[in-house]
Amino acid sequence: MVSVDLNCDMGESFGPWRMGDDAAVLPHVTSANIACGFHAGDPTTMAHTIRAAMRNRVAIGAHPGFADLVGFGRRNMDVSHDEVYDMVLYQVAAIGGVARAHGGRLAHVKPHGALYNMAARGADLADAIARAVHDYDAGLVLFGLAGSELLRAAEARSLATASEVFADRGYMPDGSLVPRSRPDALVTDEAQAIARAVRMAREGRVTAVDGTDVAVRADTICIHGDGPHAVPFARELRAALEREGVTVRAPRPEGA
Amino acid sequence: MVSVDLNCDMGESFGPWRMGDDAAVLPHVTSANIACGFHAGDPTTMAHTIRAAMRNRVAIGAHPGFADLVGFGRRNMDVSHDEVYDMVLYQVAAIGGVARAHGGRLAHVKPHGALYNMAARGADLADAIARAVHDYDAGLVLFGLAGSELLRAAEARSLATASEVFADRGYMPDGSLVPRSRPDALVTDEAQAIARAVRMAREGRVTAVDGTDVAVRADTICIHGDGPHAVPFARELRAALEREGVTVRAPRPEGA
Amino acid sequence: MVSVDLNCDMGESFGPWRMGDDAAVLPHVTSANIACGFHAGDPTTMAHTIRAAMRNRVAIGAHPGFADLVGFGRRNMDVSHDEVYDMVLYQVAAIGGVARAHGGRLAHVKPHGALYNMAARGADLADAIARAVHDYDAGLVLFGLAGSELLRAAEARSLATASEVFADRGYMPDGSLVPRSRPDALVTDEAQAIARAVRMAREGRVTAVDGTDVAVRADTICIHGDGPHAVPFARELRAALEREGVTVRAPRPEGA
Amino acid sequence: MVSVDLNCDMGESFGPWRMGDDAAVLPHVTSANIACGFHAGDPTTMAHTIRAAMRNRVAIGAHPGFADLVGFGRRNMDVSHDEVYDMVLYQVAAIGGVARAHGGRLAHVKPHGALYNMAARGADLADAIARAVHDYDAGLVLFGLAGSELLRAAEARSLATASEVFADRGYMPDGSLVPRSRPDALVTDEAQAIARAVRMAREGRVTAVDGTDVAVRADTICIHGDGPHAVPFARELRAALEREGVTVRAPRPEGA
Repeated sequence: MVSVDLNCDMGESFGPWRMGDDAAVLPHVTSANIACGFHAGDPTTMAHTIRAAMRNRVAIGAHPGFADLVGFGRRNMDVSHDEVYDMVLYQVAAIGGVARAHGGRLAHVKPHGALYNMAARGADLADAIARAVHDYDAGLVLFGLAGSELLRAAEARSLATASEVFADRGYMPDGSLVPRSRPDALVTDEAQAIARAVRMAREGRVTAVDGTDVAVRADTICIHGDGPHAVPFARELRAALEREGVTVRAPRPEGA
Repeated sequence: MVSVDLNCDMGESFGPWRMGDDAAVLPHVTSANIACGFHAGDPTTMAHTIRAAMRNRVAIGAHPGFADLVGFGRRNMDVSHDEVYDMVLYQVAAIGGVARAHGGRLAHVKPHGALYNMAARGADLADAIARAVHDYDAGLVLFGLAGSELLRAAEARSLATASEVFADRGYMPDGSLVPRSRPDALVTDEAQAIARAVRMAREGRVTAVDGTDVAVRADTICIHGDGPHAVPFARELRAALEREGVTVRAPRPEGA
Repeated sequence: MVSVDLNCDMGESFGPWRMGDDAAVLPHVTSANIACGFHAGDPTTMAHTIRAAMRNRVAIGAHPGFADLVGFGRRNMDVSHDEVYDMVLYQVAAIGGVARAHGGRLAHVKPHGALYNMAARGADLADAIARAVHDYDAGLVLFGLAGSELLRAAEARSLATASEVFADRGYMPDGSLVPRSRPDALVTDEAQAIARAVRMAREGRVTAVDGTDVAVRADTICIHGDGPHAVPFARELRAALEREGVTVRAPRPEGA
Repeated sequence: MVSVDLNCDMGESFGPWRMGDDAAVLPHVTSANIACGFHAGDPTTMAHTIRAAMRNRVAIGAHPGFADLVGFGRRNMDVSHDEVYDMVLYQVAAIGGVARAHGGRLAHVKPHGALYNMAARGADLADAIARAVHDYDAGLVLFGLAGSELLRAAEARSLATASEVFADRGYMPDGSLVPRSRPDALVTDEAQAIARAVRMAREGRVTAVDGTDVAVRADTICIHGDGPHAVPFARELRAALEREGVTVRAPRPEGA
């Protein structure tokens, strides 16, 4: 039986500022990556989002990021690996304990923004993240870009992993994402994006920008939570997956 | 057998800025109240302080405060009880998980600064703190001012408590602290301060500013971590307590 | 000739988070109170908002607040008057210099949120604000609640003032606002709100909650920038004022 | 007549945390680079430092940095040039206006930490800084590393510049600093450091690590404000300069 997870960043409001429409997206996804207060989120938003995920039976994940609110954790920063270990551990611990106090349990960790991108390429940085996750709870699933150093580091630390793919991004012949600076970085046709995602989930293959077929492991598909089409797209993608016989569920569903 | 705890605020450095001399104080105390990143502290400082406390066999405590770095959490803020619940839970969860990942375990919680003072008088605020501590771990000890609403709230939630006294503060006939605005707020003579602390620990009594004798429960004595006399005072107080037959130990010592 | 100003809080986005629809509101108001980075706003948002105000020939104002992003500067804080002086001066200086560098000029200052409310009642706090504004530029107009200590402090420091009224708030017989905790705090009927605002501007009078008529000086009317009806309400209020012969303009219009 | 400036970073305390001993260093330097609240400093610290500089007749400078308190602005960040323009303008405007309100005037700008280092090599980043300084006040002096892109950008914008040298750093044959990763990065012998600084000020030459003689323009010498030897070193360096006939003064002394 083929299964895939649909994950979405959530809890990225901050104080009086709203971001995304978590309530509308939650019914369509299976994993929520919840901001931990460094790049977005605050204690009240975090608790609210955890409870909403629980009501929707969506897996609770930590979404740790750089301490850069103004830049939303999207700006690369020259941080030491020890700093990364400490900041990831702190954020994962915070949400893990808050989830438990509210009757839930933390299921996975997906680094945010610049931390995610830097951990895709930097082996030592990736290992710092994997160690922090492992030292907090060796039973957590670490989400990372398909083919990334982060997944390799997680496997080296014996963590369960989820290899992430993007329905709306072009792929290079080597399985990496087309850089955003290129005009073919995005797949803007929604039907095509859905078809590609279904094929990645079912066959583990995608057509690269040069027309060749490339292998890509798809354990989880990234769903964007904002934009006018976010919710319909998530609904249609999920329906298409289920129509094609793909079970949509978190890597380790609630109760497993 | 009479015992008392000596507690001290620690881990209050922030980024490049140092505060206190934790390494010098740790050998003389039994409980460390470690900042959680809101009024002071950062993930790296927190981890470093936890490990230092463990090496000194000092109990690890959370020291949650208001998100007010510039004001060091000392400025009263009009916060809702729900916000207090969320912010205390977040901070306690963060340090609790970080301590566990480093092989330690969280033993107690002592609110910081304005949060501590507001919780001494405000029953609803105190209950929000007690609930957050209880929901995270019902086995934690909640530290509060002797006679405070915070201790009452903790007891109502069936939490273990530690009633805190101050060697260097004057007491009113009703057992409350002399307000800092009064000239007799502080006991500046160190020998007298030590004698008062020993008597509070042994007899549960202290001489109030009007000369009357007042009952005050002394489970833990607050040690200040900064100032030129902080370390000698802590050393002498501990020696005096032990000389008078008082066992100096955390409310729930490591391994208990 | 009777004139009145329409002011609106603006530039309250922060990093990736949007707030309000400044571009839609700007054509309908005459003074923009622009956040300075403490309760909201950031350097890029501030510069963008200043330029937008200039394009709309709307007066540029500073909107200083407490350093409390999560609480949006709405939580009362126990700050010293010296701290208030320093924080207001810093914020006014920042926006004043940025406006000048972009070819504009700062026209007024309106404190934000808790700072505004605390300065309405606290004479010493109000004086700290007035001194900071005066020391930066004695030609600025200080906006404050009608009848407030802030206006008295500004006048005592020889600053020009703008007495602010609210179209959608009930008034007590003494001219103060009905507390938000009361059911009659808000005037929810838009036509009634507009009629009340026009009368305050033309006659300086408003009907209080007990039916009596009360004098209230209306130099500027507060326009809310968010909510679905914000823009139509602003447009209709302005049209009604002009229809009734009231000139809508900033206290000191550009070029005056 | 040969002259040189001695500059030192100041006002880098933050809230309750102290850094450096500004009062002890001020009598020995001629330019103070004062933190603006992004990497360090707060409104009260800034005002206090400005007044202390004025009492010592030391030139007041802005020391803008990245919004990274925990990392003290020392971590490189991927920022856009527009962001840099906005953040530098904001910080320079804040301190410029605060200085004026206290009766002083801003004389120069020296970027801090990672911003300084990135502006030494990045021409576009350097130009963003130079434009921000120019747009705020074309009469300011921009401080930058000798031979840096920042100085080139300042000159291209017709700003006055001060070329900065370091007494305690080794130089490469091309006039750049020896990277800190190399063992010969620092000149640890104080007498040698002083002799090198005097020669740079008098002759514009320094011996590089390979023994060759290299030209380096020395308008201002960086003095470190912390460490046990900071104050004696500053005093001795100044005495040595004056003994050798070098006038120690700011690029544009007060009253010039």
